[in-house]
Amino acid sequence: MPPPPTAALSSSSSLCLFPLSSYSSPKKTQLGFCPSFPFTRLTNFTPTRRLMTCSAVSIEKETLISHRPHTFLRETDGLDDGSVRSRFQRMIMEVQDSVCGALEAVDGAGKFKEDAWTRPGGGGGISRVLQDGDVFEKAGVNISVVYGVMPPEAYRAAKANVTDQMPGPVPFFAAGISSVLHPKNPFAPTLHFNYRYFETDAPKDAPGAPRQWWFGGGTDLTPSYIFEEDVKHFHSIQKKACDKFDPSFYPRFKKWCDDYFYIKHRDERRGLGGIFFDDLNDYDQEMLLSFATECANSVVPAYVPIVEKRKNTPFTESHKAWQQLRRGRYIEFNLVYDRGTTFGLKTGGRIESILVSLPLTARWEYDHKPEEGSEEWKLLDACMNPKEWM
Amino acid sequence: MPPPPTAALSSSSSLCLFPLSSYSSPKKTQLGFCPSFPFTRLTNFTPTRRLMTCSAVSIEKETLISHRPHTFLRETDGLDDGSVRSRFQRMIMEVQDSVCGALEAVDGAGKFKEDAWTRPGGGGGISRVLQDGDVFEKAGVNISVVYGVMPPEAYRAAKANVTDQMPGPVPFFAAGISSVLHPKNPFAPTLHFNYRYFETDAPKDAPGAPRQWWFGGGTDLTPSYIFEEDVKHFHSIQKKACDKFDPSFYPRFKKWCDDYFYIKHRDERRGLGGIFFDDLNDYDQEMLLSFATECANSVVPAYVPIVEKRKNTPFTESHKAWQQLRRGRYIEFNLVYDRGTTFGLKTGGRIESILVSLPLTARWEYDHKPEEGSEEWKLLDACMNPKEWM
Repeated sequence: MPPPPTAALSSSSSLCLFPLSSYSSPKKTQLGFCPSFPFTRLTNFTPTRRLMTCSAVSIEKETLISHRPHTFLRETDGLDDGSVRSRFQRMIMEVQDSVCGALEAVDGAGKFKEDAWTRPGGGGGISRVLQDGDVFEKAGVNISVVYGVMPPEAYRAAKANVTDQMPGPVPFFAAGISSVLHPKNPFAPTLHFNYRYFETDAPKDAPGAPRQWWFGGGTDLTPSYIFEEDVKHFHSIQKKACDKFDPSFYPRFKKWCDDYFYIKHRDERRGLGGIFFDDLNDYDQEMLLSFATECANSVVPAYVPIVEKRKNTPFTESHKAWQQLRRGRYIEFNLVYDRGTTFGLKTGGRIESILVSLPLTARWEYDHKPEEGSEEWKLLDACMNPKEWM
Repeated sequence: MPPPPTAALSSSSSLCLFPLSSYSSPKKTQLGFCPSFPFTRLTNFTPTRRLMTCSAVSIEKETLISHRPHTFLRETDGLDDGSVRSRFQRMIMEVQDSVCGALEAVDGAGKFKEDAWTRPGGGGGISRVLQDGDVFEKAGVNISVVYGVMPPEAYRAAKANVTDQMPGPVPFFAAGISSVLHPKNPFAPTLHFNYRYFETDAPKDAPGAPRQWWFGGGTDLTPSYIFEEDVKHFHSIQKKACDKFDPSFYPRFKKWCDDYFYIKHRDERRGLGGIFFDDLNDYDQEMLLSFATECANSVVPAYVPIVEKRKNTPFTESHKAWQQLRRGRYIEFNLVYDRGTTFGLKTGGRIESILVSLPLTARWEYDHKPEEGSEEWKLLDACMNPKEWM
């Protein structure tokens, strides 16, 4: 009998924790994160709860709540303010506040609408969406905290030197922030960012087995038109954040980003990249918490000055139509390739939170080809042939 | 060692011939069809040709040609005018002409643009697209003829009582017509139809093994607003076409249609259904050729009177916005679930022909919920709870 599928909890543009054996790294189990997609603990669900199953994971239906709580951590976790999970949760809550505040200030008119939810098995999330503002067509900034259980095979795959004794299902914790920002002006770029932390408990029936943890995330820019100074500014902030920690980070994570946001059927990247990393656990844990925090705090300085500069640039209908075509590509990537989106849709995450990454409007023209040498062609060329911006 | 993946050549909204073992019927190999997706014969490709591989199938790059040929059949096939493959090809060419002619007449202004292509290994296709006309936002009517080779396992799965001797790769022929029509007026519905025929040669190294063939297809309606008389008219034409051949066809293929066009993550059907069938080979071959022909010839009488009636109905911005949201659902179905689209994208079919099924424009609003009892709500309700229209 073949073994059950490995739970590969993999990274994504829309953030989803998910088991997809075809994506699993040969070395270790990957982590992803979905703001709407907390797995229930398989060990304590009751048949009366609405459960959706996918591979070895069941998902509990979320309960909308009227006020955001102070924490989504379980009581036992919440008592330890110094734990990495507690500090990571605090960080993403603060970043959600600061990013939303900065975006409302740029927009001037639009306000974020908030939806918060919990799950009976623990954890929860907060979706914040600003739609049809003066500057932003659609801006979503979501956080989520997940308590789940991974199948033992996934845990074993995650750690090569686990004891030979097969452990039972392994409880895990995950938390993350995820955001996609689509401005109206075709000269103002779309931004996506996503930072997440994952941790397993030691399996109860294999007490000697080690606890696992890792970080993932990234920030990437998707313009419809290239302003070299904007792209360089954006990448320079990413590089600065990386260089504070390790000189190898920026080149490595820049390439990872170009590789991940690849629309295979178009042979194009979704945009002009940034940084992307996953499975990061081979550095000091405190260092990586600081690194993720630095990256998340770099979102506003990397992005807001660009939107400020471009939000009122005059444009024509033809500029707008090109932006709409590029929005179409964004949708193609997210619905066809993005691991979090596709998994989240198939396994019953909170659909509205998953699909908030899609722009308000988009366009598909048959066989559209920009004129060689045009500004549209230059963007396309940079999406097909990733450049070094630093 | 597990057996190689079965080539399940499965049906779809955008038409693709494809091997997806997860979709394969337990009984037989399924057929689908993609206007842009002719498989090359694996046995005679040369390394200088650009080939894309997926599972056991390689796809040869198409060559655009300036004039549509009289036939895409190989010379040996074309000499036999009475063969089913030859008569099916003639039928889809005639239907492409008659549908495009009827649509241009309804539109009044828009004209179809034609792209034709061949593949070195045989076969080819014709894409016709009318974009941004007076009545149609985007209308695509494609035909394609494919010569390919299926892995022996697929052939064995297709026929239970094949000799125990393992045959070599089995050459196959497939042809089909596929179309999606998106009108501008939000009261005029979107239409999709798709008819296809599939045939294997007897394997050369297993001369006693039987030849396989089957038919697939369907026609379905996707309105943004329900006019009961329109939906009843549409379904009555489908039923009439079915009833001419077998009284079990309409109820069976109506349910199959509701089941296939299901957007799982929304718990909604894409539209209000019609008919859908696949793997049809347990009737007389001549009868099924007549049935497919009848269905394809029913497209114009089933659809054109509805568009004529609704194309000039006055509408508001809010009607248009709702249509755009429903267009978004169409895209979600096609990019996430439609077997032909997803397979075609991943294996290198002619992208522009595959994605011509997507509307020109679409919209995604966060957490949009129509008011209970509204016209929009009624449509949504009918998509969630398929009705009997006859």
